[in-house]
Amino acid sequence: MNRNNSETSALNRRTFLKSSSLALGAAGMAAATSAEAAPWFSPGRNLMAKGSVILFQGDSITDAGRSRDQEKASTPNNQPGLGNGYAWLAAAELLVGQPEDGLKLFNRGISGHKVFQLAERWQTDCLDFKPEVLSILIGVNDIWHSLDPKLNYKGTVEIYERDYHALVERTKKALPKVKLVVCEPFVLRCGAVTDKWFPEFDKYRAAAKRVADTHHATFVPFQAMFDVAVKYAPPEHWAGDGVHPSPAGAALMAHFWLKAVSGKR
Amino acid sequence: MNRNNSETSALNRRTFLKSSSLALGAAGMAAATSAEAAPWFSPGRNLMAKGSVILFQGDSITDAGRSRDQEKASTPNNQPGLGNGYAWLAAAELLVGQPEDGLKLFNRGISGHKVFQLAERWQTDCLDFKPEVLSILIGVNDIWHSLDPKLNYKGTVEIYERDYHALVERTKKALPKVKLVVCEPFVLRCGAVTDKWFPEFDKYRAAAKRVADTHHATFVPFQAMFDVAVKYAPPEHWAGDGVHPSPAGAALMAHFWLKAVSGKR
Repeated sequence: MNRNNSETSALNRRTFLKSSSLALGAAGMAAATSAEAAPWFSPGRNLMAKGSVILFQGDSITDAGRSRDQEKASTPNNQPGLGNGYAWLAAAELLVGQPEDGLKLFNRGISGHKVFQLAERWQTDCLDFKPEVLSILIGVNDIWHSLDPKLNYKGTVEIYERDYHALVERTKKALPKVKLVVCEPFVLRCGAVTDKWFPEFDKYRAAAKRVADTHHATFVPFQAMFDVAVKYAPPEHWAGDGVHPSPAGAALMAHFWLKAVSGKR
Repeated sequence: MNRNNSETSALNRRTFLKSSSLALGAAGMAAATSAEAAPWFSPGRNLMAKGSVILFQGDSITDAGRSRDQEKASTPNNQPGLGNGYAWLAAAELLVGQPEDGLKLFNRGISGHKVFQLAERWQTDCLDFKPEVLSILIGVNDIWHSLDPKLNYKGTVEIYERDYHALVERTKKALPKVKLVVCEPFVLRCGAVTDKWFPEFDKYRAAAKRVADTHHATFVPFQAMFDVAVKYAPPEHWAGDGVHPSPAGAALMAHFWLKAVSGKR
């Protein structure tokens, strides 16, 4: 087949799909174009508007060494305050790409935290920000700490899901218009992540998905993403200890987080 | 203003612009939507098709520690063969996002190289690959080595531009259908990059832009990108020595390289 013809017809097809999306709606559109993108990824709507406050919440993966200095942490779009992980990388890509949109990005992830610890600091570290977009990545410590007898943490997946639902309900009551992003907890099969994590870990992922679905949140399928990524580089390349992403792992997360919240394939 | 109304009208506006793009054409569309994205960034068309061979060429910024092992370097989509820089990050994001597109990505950047050194190895390291998409980032050594008396390199911006044009002409003769990406050489104002680089360095950037324009190549404005990035983090954060990107710098490059070659804003 002649390449130029093929390109032209692909362009015509995309143009046709764009116009027909007016009639089909977003769901039909996503189905119609699914052959062109990852089968594991179906983005939601664009969550961002001019001037949006965007808050990242979670554990060490979100924290990623962010500064606890009061001034740095309370200044939006401040690199030390945003850390060195996926949250900062996503923020940088947004800020550089859309400087005139006036987005205000903050990070309040704290290393080691589990859902109940987010709840303990939720008023000051989330609700008081009045975020338009709230992105949560939580769950890996909820299982990890329960696997380590030394830590004496008695959490279960039922407690995780119950507390997570309650946290989101409380958030929606305080901030009815908040746009919620629930990120899938993930691990790479290396480092600290041994066979004893499974199949229990999969239940935590499923619970996070139910929280997202129940509350009509955008879901970012990080585990599905890393499951594809390990076809191209070994697990250690994406997260040396199986839990904390490398710069390449964080960059991949930022890329797909952005696709998810911007509604783009 | 009521937010929901504002969102609805923004959505309607985008929908209107999408449909009117059928009449306006791509150029009109880009102008009409420019207020919604970075003023410094105007992406071209989508360059990739199913099964495309994509080759990254350049100097150390592209090389980024890639393996010289014959097997690893000649296997497409191989992390060691692709290095640890923007080329690998862009490749990973493409491969994970579009696994069924069967893209084949290679890296043949070599540390320290200038345009004439690309030319010396162009047959085996470019033309023999028969790439559908060829991305070149070259120029920083063409000026840097001329600034260091110890290296005794007598290159000028005129030689750089003449050789770069010749290289592209030779490429288009051998591969008439190749889709060319010319990346803007860039520096951050820190580390090895002192005042003596300027205003000469700006002439190299302008020369690369003329090469892109003359040959209807997609231009990736990395300098413009980093000029915005330094509003959010100091130059050292993006490239410690002013020349070689940090992981955050490489992630930002991968992000905008992908936007440029995929034709997305």
